[in-house]
Amino acid sequence: MRVGLLVDGEWKKDWYAPDEAGRFVRPKTRFREQVSASGQGRFPVEPGRYHLYVSTACPWASRTLIIRAVKGLEEAVGVTVVDPRMGEDGWSFEGYPGSDEDRLNGARYLRDVYLRADPHYTGRVTVPVLWDTRERTIVNNESREVLRMLDTEFHALARSPVTLWPEGLRERVDETITALYEPVNNGVYRTGFAKSQDAYEKACRELFSALEGWEQVLSRQRYLCGDVLTEADVCMYTTLVRFDLVYYAHFKCNLSRLQDFPNLWNYLLDLYQTPGFAETTDLEHIKVHYYWSQDAVNPTRIVPLGPRVDLRAPHDRDRWGPRRLAPLPVARGA
Amino acid sequence: MRVGLLVDGEWKKDWYAPDEAGRFVRPKTRFREQVSASGQGRFPVEPGRYHLYVSTACPWASRTLIIRAVKGLEEAVGVTVVDPRMGEDGWSFEGYPGSDEDRLNGARYLRDVYLRADPHYTGRVTVPVLWDTRERTIVNNESREVLRMLDTEFHALARSPVTLWPEGLRERVDETITALYEPVNNGVYRTGFAKSQDAYEKACRELFSALEGWEQVLSRQRYLCGDVLTEADVCMYTTLVRFDLVYYAHFKCNLSRLQDFPNLWNYLLDLYQTPGFAETTDLEHIKVHYYWSQDAVNPTRIVPLGPRVDLRAPHDRDRWGPRRLAPLPVARGA
Repeated sequence: MRVGLLVDGEWKKDWYAPDEAGRFVRPKTRFREQVSASGQGRFPVEPGRYHLYVSTACPWASRTLIIRAVKGLEEAVGVTVVDPRMGEDGWSFEGYPGSDEDRLNGARYLRDVYLRADPHYTGRVTVPVLWDTRERTIVNNESREVLRMLDTEFHALARSPVTLWPEGLRERVDETITALYEPVNNGVYRTGFAKSQDAYEKACRELFSALEGWEQVLSRQRYLCGDVLTEADVCMYTTLVRFDLVYYAHFKCNLSRLQDFPNLWNYLLDLYQTPGFAETTDLEHIKVHYYWSQDAVNPTRIVPLGPRVDLRAPHDRDRWGPRRLAPLPVARGA
Repeated sequence: MRVGLLVDGEWKKDWYAPDEAGRFVRPKTRFREQVSASGQGRFPVEPGRYHLYVSTACPWASRTLIIRAVKGLEEAVGVTVVDPRMGEDGWSFEGYPGSDEDRLNGARYLRDVYLRADPHYTGRVTVPVLWDTRERTIVNNESREVLRMLDTEFHALARSPVTLWPEGLRERVDETITALYEPVNNGVYRTGFAKSQDAYEKACRELFSALEGWEQVLSRQRYLCGDVLTEADVCMYTTLVRFDLVYYAHFKCNLSRLQDFPNLWNYLLDLYQTPGFAETTDLEHIKVHYYWSQDAVNPTRIVPLGPRVDLRAPHDRDRWGPRRLAPLPVARGA
């Protein structure tokens, strides 16, 4: 997978070096500050102060778009959508339909936003970015942490009094998000970006073994952590909704289709049809992003016409009764 | 699609130039002589004299393997199977499991066999090759013509007194083979080797439009030309059996799977389960050939683990009664 990165503020058109066994290894994110609900610290929560740079194609960034929609934070936290085509200059604002100009920073490339935060930044230029319009810097670019922050620190600005990190399930949610990461969320990339047959086969088998495990879990309960929607479901969803559409063929995740797992497929339909999910899922951006950008996998950059996937089809997940979201925790002083 | 070719006897590691619109254009074959049943001419039919060089991965070559098996010509006409991996030296005898050494000519590469036939040969080095062990030359390398020759000129050597070019249907069979070629047999290649989005989309839509037409035909009758198996079915089969396995993902023929066409899918199962078909279909060679050889489409050369396709599943084509093959035509003098 070819991708550019910044080295002490200089843009390098570089390649991911797979490791010696041909495995894809995802580097760590760099900005790890916290917005706080308490009003203390450098980044207190304030309406309109924080802003998300996202790609609707990217499963990591899409986590933050979903929580923003589920919580009703659209007015409190703005969004800029990058162009789904990631070329040799990285994420950009080149204006593909459904993407935005950068009204906040007037940048042409997302790397310019990173350089505004740190002129000597070294590392990858990724989405999501949680941007602070006051300090004009990046608060955090780690999707799991931004997801959590929007869920737990922005209650005061949220239109919907719900949380996807409910008391009593927090440890389980955290363990599940961790368990999903390597075999599933990153597993599809390790499968698709493998440079050796062995690395591919190992990643692919781990992925399907994990999916088979979750298929069993979802035969017993509506959601990954029980009977309420949690952040873990958001993390699972952004991988699953891309599965038959892109990962099956482009990343060779083809031991079976997601449609061939009845519980996982119905679960995906259920989530897609949950307010906040379909609205933030851009199936065209997803296809264009993977097929156009990853020319080390798809050298012609041709985007396939298919497959036809019907995410509005009826599902069987209401057998556990109506959908449930957890209410906000009771405030315990301040 | 990178492929070597001979130019006045010299091997060139070259590329197919797509035309200015990004379309894949298949060059014509060069050896077009005829074996004759009559015993006249340069190439009279004789037991053991003619030999096939084939790839079990190649849909064109597989036509000739099927007719050889259906007619019971295994003893009369020998076969050498090339390595399914076609690298920068073209088809070879490098010894991948299930392939052969070249016992006839001791060649390392199939191009050496072409050069034995014509030291100044200019053109592609393709399979099938119908080789004459007596004259030590290539009789014909055009699959449609070799298929027809084995069907009509080798009756005297065939164990099974059947033909796939039955009297009364001959014109229809020929028209059908012609009709299949551009949108279907070559259509999957035009889809997969397209170098522009427009050329891809046009070829892909033509392919699926043709498949939809044949889906209708096969709702009314067992075979493409009526109630008996013909050469047209052989030509259709070698494309269909590769469809969900390879073309769907590798060639982006993904408006739907073949499995999503009930009549075409059941027809494929019926043919696969007809004596002569499964025995000459090597699903592993097929996958390895396309994914390994076509590094302009799949640069990593990684061969996917899936999909799982069950060609032994029951089918519904016996609703027209038992399978029928046409008997040999009645001899009308000599």
